Amino acid sequence: MTSLSAKIESHGNAVDMLRNSQIGMYVYPVVAPEYTNWRNEQAAWRKSAVLFDQTHHMDELIVEGPDAEAFLAYVGINAFGNFDLNRAKHFVPVTPAGHVIGDMIIFRERMDKFILVGRAPTANWVKFQAAIGTWKVRLFHDPRSNSRPDGERVLRTHHRFQIQGPDAPAIFEKINGGPVADIPFFHVDWINVGSKKVQALRHGMAGAPGLEIWGPYDDKHYIQSTIQQAARDIGVDLVQVGSRAYSTNTLESGWIPSPLPGIYTGDGMMQEYRDWLGADSYEAAGSIGGSFVSKEISDYYVNPFELGYGFYIGWKKENFIGKDALLKLKDAPNRQKVTFEWNREDVLKVIASGLEQGTPFKWIDFPQPNYASSSADMVMQGDKMVGMSMFNGYSYNERCFLSLGVVAADVNIGDVLTLKWGEPETTGKTSTEPHQQTEIRVRVSATPYAKDARENYADSWRTKAD
Amino acid sequence: MTSLSAKIESHGNAVDMLRNSQIGMYVYPVVAPEYTNWRNEQAAWRKSAVLFDQTHHMDELIVEGPDAEAFLAYVGINAFGNFDLNRAKHFVPVTPAGHVIGDMIIFRERMDKFILVGRAPTANWVKFQAAIGTWKVRLFHDPRSNSRPDGERVLRTHHRFQIQGPDAPAIFEKINGGPVADIPFFHVDWINVGSKKVQALRHGMAGAPGLEIWGPYDDKHYIQSTIQQAARDIGVDLVQVGSRAYSTNTLESGWIPSPLPGIYTGDGMMQEYRDWLGADSYEAAGSIGGSFVSKEISDYYVNPFELGYGFYIGWKKENFIGKDALLKLKDAPNRQKVTFEWNREDVLKVIASGLEQGTPFKWIDFPQPNYASSSADMVMQGDKMVGMSMFNGYSYNERCFLSLGVVAADVNIGDVLTLKWGEPETTGKTSTEPHQQTEIRVRVSATPYAKDARENYADSWRTKAD
Repeated sequence: MTSLSAKIESHGNAVDMLRNSQIGMYVYPVVAPEYTNWRNEQAAWRKSAVLFDQTHHMDELIVEGPDAEAFLAYVGINAFGNFDLNRAKHFVPVTPAGHVIGDMIIFRERMDKFILVGRAPTANWVKFQAAIGTWKVRLFHDPRSNSRPDGERVLRTHHRFQIQGPDAPAIFEKINGGPVADIPFFHVDWINVGSKKVQALRHGMAGAPGLEIWGPYDDKHYIQSTIQQAARDIGVDLVQVGSRAYSTNTLESGWIPSPLPGIYTGDGMMQEYRDWLGADSYEAAGSIGGSFVSKEISDYYVNPFELGYGFYIGWKKENFIGKDALLKLKDAPNRQKVTFEWNREDVLKVIASGLEQGTPFKWIDFPQPNYASSSADMVMQGDKMVGMSMFNGYSYNERCFLSLGVVAADVNIGDVLTLKWGEPETTGKTSTEPHQQTEIRVRVSATPYAKDARENYADSWRTKAD
Repeated sequence: MTSLSAKIESHGNAVDMLRNSQIGMYVYPVVAPEYTNWRNEQAAWRKSAVLFDQTHHMDELIVEGPDAEAFLAYVGINAFGNFDLNRAKHFVPVTPAGHVIGDMIIFRERMDKFILVGRAPTANWVKFQAAIGTWKVRLFHDPRSNSRPDGERVLRTHHRFQIQGPDAPAIFEKINGGPVADIPFFHVDWINVGSKKVQALRHGMAGAPGLEIWGPYDDKHYIQSTIQQAARDIGVDLVQVGSRAYSTNTLESGWIPSPLPGIYTGDGMMQEYRDWLGADSYEAAGSIGGSFVSKEISDYYVNPFELGYGFYIGWKKENFIGKDALLKLKDAPNRQKVTFEWNREDVLKVIASGLEQGTPFKWIDFPQPNYASSSADMVMQGDKMVGMSMFNGYSYNERCFLSLGVVAADVNIGDVLTLKWGEPETTGKTSTEPHQQTEIRVRVSATPYAKDARENYADSWRTKAD
């Protein structure tokens, strides 16, 4: 069995294949689980400053050549007109049917060279498009690090760090040996880290300023120790974040890392893609976890409008994959991205079941109970499914469980819905223990959650009776 | 600052030094946190079979030479008279005052060669005794693996696996290519693993049979894959255990891995030892966590009788370190080792505080909330401290939190005591978040817990009102 197509066929359908994947947890590899403890690590990105080591958990794809720009503008939905050397973009490709495949951050290193960073599905799709097209491009793919290196050495092309938090700017000035130019959001510039120059992307998380920097992997120890020493020198409490806290930061900022790539359906190019994708690819080996079980794999897909990426679309581009489909979807009643605030009593009910004999409810593992590459939990209004929860976790900053997902257009912020927690039957997934399904009330909240919660109803579950 | 002595002096006293250590969690390194999920991994050692990869978390010390036996018999309390080539022992050294320093498993590989495996304090003490004595011995120390290898390669002298559980014997027969000789408990023999011969120690855990095997590190992949393939071939569900579940197995079997080495007090040889020990040694860099705060570091010590090791003592040996002190302690009213079964409602109260604004109670991290190299939580009967909880965690098998520790001789099995949970003040430990202290009721239970609980009162908290 060599292709995704063959693997789907052997399982009967893609839903059964993915819901019974034995790949296990989606791991954030190599980086230690905790450097201090995950509660303090979460708190630090609000209170002082954090150091994220992002070197290992993402694929990197380098695209270069005379057609690089035209090629990528055709593959992704994004406008490329304003894509200068000093900018980065959130690159989103969709299928001809308009379903999101994934997303990567794309950096323009030279006029004819781009670096894409993110989960595998987008890298795979870009490689396929280069393989079947006649574009003058050369690609280099550096897949994410081994999930369980087990003592073996791990090498990558680049190191990649992010420094975030209210005290981050003081660190930048120190490592740069002087004031850092005011880089606009998602723009790129060069800064010094001690005796080395690195590229820096202006990022932001829940309102706090930050930079993502990268350079050759060989420089990793020098860059990291220089940053940490700089923080000590100026008395800033720079907290290194381990893999347990890392993946939860997106709950507060509102990005959904794990939409299911919409590539399991469609004829023509899509069938060709599934024949081309290996049986050990992310798309073939990955898993779907959660209470939502549909016979139609396409029920797990999302479109760019639902994820809030509609404004990325380069409508002026003559052509790009999915343009016609997106034009039709544009004014449809699309679902909207929201944050679900989980009810405290219901979360405690689930936890309490782990301290009783019998089959407990699905374990809520702190701070990150996701148990699959993509999550899909049903969100109900009465008997009607009105939403899908796609990425969950605990925020020590907010002292509550949150998840990100999409809801029907007529659901309102503040509505209380019901999330079905746990799977209806035992699957082949190795990441789940036997469990019973139950319900958790969730309150619909905006994304990003943090600001909204502070201003509106962070204490709502705690102060109001239901 | 080069020695433990200098470091203690710079902190004023050993208690302040250890309670404010910034070393962080005691990590079980290199091995992945989870292979399937820690609930199923715990369940498997009762239900089918588990594979523990013990290659990385223990120090190894090889002691060889014409005086090896005499030397080790002098350093440890154990009887050596029956120590043939086919036996292993649980080696325990104490100070001249009779305080436990630590423990290691000791294997006799040749008449003049021993291998000791376990935490650092015993290895350090044995090295010191060789350094100050005139014994004809040569030592080779292979310290535990890097706690956070961060992508660098990790090398050890030996691989070390343990296979446990009701289905383990079927695997042994398969990998051995025929019936395995019936190795008595804590005896050693050779078995085949595919085309290689390895040494095997007969071990046991909560009544289930098992073997610990070891050999050259270069053979690790071959040995592991041969074992896993053998299990698949015979249809046994052999579950590899990750680092999160691994450390909890001792809660059911009753071994306390982390007594504080009793080396911070005493003159003469003990002072010399503290001058000799490096400032980055386990003893100098490690930490004490828990609610018990005493000005006297010796209040954290235990003696071999308290840990149930009294029957190891080789009283017939003419001399060994600590013999005189142990003779005096022998008939004293020593504390006894017990398991504390934590009250479900009180555990839930602590967890619930993490879903409220304000300063929560000390976080109970599943399945292993220990946050220091050595733990010391006060166990109270009314206003009187009658015990010390020394190692805690959650057992999915028992569906409850347990801890191991010692209680005063007049405490009885079944007594309900109160464990003070959390530290009275904020320390320098990086492994704790800010928290409030609270109380958790605990029921005194025998060790090992598993059998006792099944036969007597496993459901007691659940079925009886308090």
